[in-house]
Amino acid sequence: MKIIIVGATGTIGSKVNANLEKDHEVIKVGSQSGDLQADITDPESLENLFEETGSFDALVSATGAAHFGPLQEMTAEDFDMGLQSKLLGQVNLVLTGQHYINPKGSFTLVSGILSEDPVADSVNVSAVNSAVNGFVKAAALELENDVRINAVSPGVVEDSPELFDAFPGHTPVAMNRVVKAYRKSVLGISNGEIIKVW
Amino acid sequence: MKIIIVGATGTIGSKVNANLEKDHEVIKVGSQSGDLQADITDPESLENLFEETGSFDALVSATGAAHFGPLQEMTAEDFDMGLQSKLLGQVNLVLTGQHYINPKGSFTLVSGILSEDPVADSVNVSAVNSAVNGFVKAAALELENDVRINAVSPGVVEDSPELFDAFPGHTPVAMNRVVKAYRKSVLGISNGEIIKVW
Repeated sequence: MKIIIVGATGTIGSKVNANLEKDHEVIKVGSQSGDLQADITDPESLENLFEETGSFDALVSATGAAHFGPLQEMTAEDFDMGLQSKLLGQVNLVLTGQHYINPKGSFTLVSGILSEDPVADSVNVSAVNSAVNGFVKAAALELENDVRINAVSPGVVEDSPELFDAFPGHTPVAMNRVVKAYRKSVLGISNGEIIKVW
Repeated sequence: MKIIIVGATGTIGSKVNANLEKDHEVIKVGSQSGDLQADITDPESLENLFEETGSFDALVSATGAAHFGPLQEMTAEDFDMGLQSKLLGQVNLVLTGQHYINPKGSFTLVSGILSEDPVADSVNVSAVNSAVNGFVKAAALELENDVRINAVSPGVVEDSPELFDAFPGHTPVAMNRVVKAYRKSVLGISNGEIIKVW
């Protein structure tokens, strides 16, 4: 299977890559690292990316930023950052990628536990993760040629100890469980599923 | 109670206004109609609005556009329209309004059934409605001075027969149920609730 991993050098992406590259052809994409570079907020950059990769069987996303900060001080610009990056950036991967993906291929996006279990300062992330989930549920019903789409929704992961204080009382999630969620989406038959890992 | 209704002349807003103005001081806000005009996509316009209204007890939103159209033809620009209007526009009402609302006041935003029950062409609306719900759940935990926030999530409403064909098998919702949901949010004690009307 030919798999594109966007965000392949990040905390989650690098583990997903290490797992999938054992028995699949993986193309690692990053904003500045990886085999190929692309800017997910720029549809033209993604068009160039897929022209270079050619058709593919699965696109895995473990990328996108959102704003962390107190509601009282938040500006429209802060909020829009998350909309443009983790939300519209990942949506762009599907809007553009749908024209290059092989029949029976799959998209796997990333959302996260904060959609359902907010912490302090997570207002933007909570909204963005919710939107990614809502997009996935609706897009699964419209994608053609038996292409599937799912979201992996992890809790705070054990490889991000710098975040533990921001998630009081949360149990850090083992990375191998997150990797398995991506494998389920890519290699299984799930469609329109929010694969919760927490 | 001093209540600001944004989108007060729309299908839902006009009915909510007719109900609330019986026993409350209502300020009707529209993009081009109403007592005062404001552009919800422009934080400065909202700052001017609240400078004019002064402090208030409740802000009710029944406004915001999103993109309806097939996933196969959707562009980043199409998708961003809904993010900027129904999502960030309503979020802006809270980001700016939180500095003008009275203690124990309330915000009521509007989302909709498509977050959970997509129809054809609703990918953007489904994502936007999901994000509004996620924002409300998180913001309820951060708003200060006992200020509350809820979302009313209506199904297709009986006053929009032009939409019935786009919602096959959906049961149109009586407008008085939608109005009651807004009353529950404004006059009750709900907080962080997605008030489903379907």
